[in-house]
Amino acid sequence: MAEKITPRSSDYSQWYIDIVTNAKLADYSPVKGCMVIRPRGYALWENIQRVLDGMFKATGHVNAYFPMLIPESFLKKEAEHVEGFSPELAVVTYAGGEKLEEPLVVRPTSETIIWSMYQKWIHSYRDLPLLINQWANVVRWEKRTRLFLRTTEFLWQEGHTAHASAEEAQAETLKMLGVYKTFLEEWMAIPVLEGEKSESEKFAGAVKTFSIEAMMQDKKALQAGTSHNLGQNFAKAFDVTFQTKDGNLDHVWATSWGVSTRLIGALIMAHSDDKGLVVPPRLAPVEAVVIPVFRKDNVAEVSAYAQALGDELKGLGLKVELDLDDAASPGWKFAEWEMVGVPVRIEVGPKDMEKNQAVLVRRDTGEKLFVPRGEVAGKVRELLLAIQKSLFDRALEFRKANTFRVASYAEFKTLMEGEGGFVQAPWCTSRECEAAIKEDTKATIRNLPFELANVPVEGGCLYCGKPGHRWAVWAKSY
Amino acid sequence: MAEKITPRSSDYSQWYIDIVTNAKLADYSPVKGCMVIRPRGYALWENIQRVLDGMFKATGHVNAYFPMLIPESFLKKEAEHVEGFSPELAVVTYAGGEKLEEPLVVRPTSETIIWSMYQKWIHSYRDLPLLINQWANVVRWEKRTRLFLRTTEFLWQEGHTAHASAEEAQAETLKMLGVYKTFLEEWMAIPVLEGEKSESEKFAGAVKTFSIEAMMQDKKALQAGTSHNLGQNFAKAFDVTFQTKDGNLDHVWATSWGVSTRLIGALIMAHSDDKGLVVPPRLAPVEAVVIPVFRKDNVAEVSAYAQALGDELKGLGLKVELDLDDAASPGWKFAEWEMVGVPVRIEVGPKDMEKNQAVLVRRDTGEKLFVPRGEVAGKVRELLLAIQKSLFDRALEFRKANTFRVASYAEFKTLMEGEGGFVQAPWCTSRECEAAIKEDTKATIRNLPFELANVPVEGGCLYCGKPGHRWAVWAKSY
Repeated sequence: MAEKITPRSSDYSQWYIDIVTNAKLADYSPVKGCMVIRPRGYALWENIQRVLDGMFKATGHVNAYFPMLIPESFLKKEAEHVEGFSPELAVVTYAGGEKLEEPLVVRPTSETIIWSMYQKWIHSYRDLPLLINQWANVVRWEKRTRLFLRTTEFLWQEGHTAHASAEEAQAETLKMLGVYKTFLEEWMAIPVLEGEKSESEKFAGAVKTFSIEAMMQDKKALQAGTSHNLGQNFAKAFDVTFQTKDGNLDHVWATSWGVSTRLIGALIMAHSDDKGLVVPPRLAPVEAVVIPVFRKDNVAEVSAYAQALGDELKGLGLKVELDLDDAASPGWKFAEWEMVGVPVRIEVGPKDMEKNQAVLVRRDTGEKLFVPRGEVAGKVRELLLAIQKSLFDRALEFRKANTFRVASYAEFKTLMEGEGGFVQAPWCTSRECEAAIKEDTKATIRNLPFELANVPVEGGCLYCGKPGHRWAVWAKSY
Repeated sequence: MAEKITPRSSDYSQWYIDIVTNAKLADYSPVKGCMVIRPRGYALWENIQRVLDGMFKATGHVNAYFPMLIPESFLKKEAEHVEGFSPELAVVTYAGGEKLEEPLVVRPTSETIIWSMYQKWIHSYRDLPLLINQWANVVRWEKRTRLFLRTTEFLWQEGHTAHASAEEAQAETLKMLGVYKTFLEEWMAIPVLEGEKSESEKFAGAVKTFSIEAMMQDKKALQAGTSHNLGQNFAKAFDVTFQTKDGNLDHVWATSWGVSTRLIGALIMAHSDDKGLVVPPRLAPVEAVVIPVFRKDNVAEVSAYAQALGDELKGLGLKVELDLDDAASPGWKFAEWEMVGVPVRIEVGPKDMEKNQAVLVRRDTGEKLFVPRGEVAGKVRELLLAIQKSLFDRALEFRKANTFRVASYAEFKTLMEGEGGFVQAPWCTSRECEAAIKEDTKATIRNLPFELANVPVEGGCLYCGKPGHRWAVWAKSY
């Protein structure tokens, strides 16, 4: 452990992988494209789950569980849906020693199986809205994979709701996008752009897709969550009708929305540095680590002092670990705990004992504070809040500093070939311009951001120069 | 809803299914043998998960996640393991539009994929013990399925631990069995028999399997959890060695242990009645429901009184729902909430308003209590404790009353063909006697219970009459 991490400046991609593996967040598995989420990585996912689950429940949702294996024919019921997912499916053809009459696909997402059940459950407006979420694993056979960011199997949550009107479905779609934004910004300390996806980037089967987009430290975008207004597409495909209040029969309106273990990749890439992982305090499985700095002749005393301090902090409800290992040097331990991203390090040595104090070190800035013994708990709490805020502020500053408007397509191209960043530019809304830019620069429309929705569109389309109808944000992405 | 439930006395099996479907705990899915766990059923699973997860963490375990798809060759590495699981496997043969070079099986359990990773992670005694748990879905292609009790896909947790000695592994095996026992008895209010499984009933790949066995209301046994001492079997199959403290190289010792959504089936069958589900209060998603008993002319006043009471109880931390629906009659609502098993019903009508009181009704006994308004919260808490205890006591009494010793095999046979129950009988430990009894009566050895381990074996083997070596408990089972 404490192996060398490739610096961000020399190879960002390798830096990322080095952090994932050295901080023991995940590991490659013997199955192509599938990862093993190790305990330190899974602890982050558990915290993400806990908080999001609470937010879903506070907005009226309940959890359920639907089968992972879906009859192949179900996927074909919604034409765009099957087209979108077919190339990525894993298919069970044998089971119980026999060839199956109908192959079963491992869910790439659960709209089809869920709407086949909603058909049984929904009859009247009294059954609506139906607000169900599922925590599950899904499989999408990806050609190129990267730990957390894109893996063949991943963990996620998928909300699937049914409503009595188009307006309600749209309100739900935006509400859940807002929940994601709040979670990303307030818990993960990652500022995001909310916005609508372009037609060509929307979910296969959706009427409209909305996303939150975050900027990573290499200035690429990462789509951190999506929320889809499915209109009546799945209700029609699965014939889900309901009796309306005024006695008519209508198809149900739907939404779906999800975030995945990819968020852990976002967390790593948004905040970490060349010493390792940096975890936003509100999601940290361990908030502070107490490390005694002893020599051979004072192991017992210093350890006792550290232990007492650690126990006190735990007793006050802080998530604290104590590293009493006397086989490793303090310096080695400092590096190890920096690697795993614990927000605050508390060092205590003989001098600190004498002075009845402790040394607090911030993971994000490296700042050292000498704190009287009686004030340690309060100071740790203060630092946790400060670090949380500082990580967000820094990320927001970084995004602002790297968000541009360009005078010409040539300037845009130079930027995308060079430094990168987010570019706000008018778009004529034609698929052709969008495709041409992608082909040319690998940059895509991340979304049509809400924050520019009411800003008058200045100038012509980034690509064709014809009148721009919408502001779009363009970037290379994960 | 509030549809008729088949009485237990007329068809126990149908009674069970009626409860599962009418209480909306689960539903049949379009995929053979797979169930949909509906929100009310999943809420029970969430509570089970939360409590068990806390118990696992309190005993030093951490969670992780391993791939669901396992190379077919991995399963073959442990000879008994593959033999045990082969007939039940679901196999992915196509993925991403191409035929796979090596088929991937959907995990029926994760020993093989996990031990292939432990081989990378474990090198020294310093890496041990490794105490990992996983919450996951698994698939076993079952011919005959029943909601919750036996489904093709189910949710479970599987602990997989690695140890530096045989003694440690055995201690872990028993510790986790003890955790399960505590959970079943103190949270689910289901008394269980801890014991060792016979050779023929042990887990494919284990050295020893231990189980907890519960008696259902039809006197059949239900295996509620298992804990396996895997010895060095998987370490040898996957070549997982470690440097011992004294510098030698040795294979690692292992355990695995699991409980599943089957526990929900146990909960239903242990406590419920002909009115519907009965949930032990400590696991109840809703502890009490407030139902206003109004006429058309006093809906507003009575509802306000009910609302104020409900809000007060919620404010005090009780999990309370309020059923203000004025389209349904009180009687219909009483039946509905009895069906879903809420432990305490709180009725408030105009007379109760006058007297400044509420009527509390126990779900388990139907007992009615008239309680002054100011004492409702305290009384609800008291009732929750009383119901929890009473459910356990009743189940224990029932098991005691239906646990027998028999004078002869003929008597045993008569019992198994008739009333059923648990039979404690000496066993010569031969596979042949065990198999003959199963063939003859469908009863199996549930386990060799710890509580009889130190009781001198009286008399000969239940079947062959030769000297009995161990006490066994026999029963028909789920």
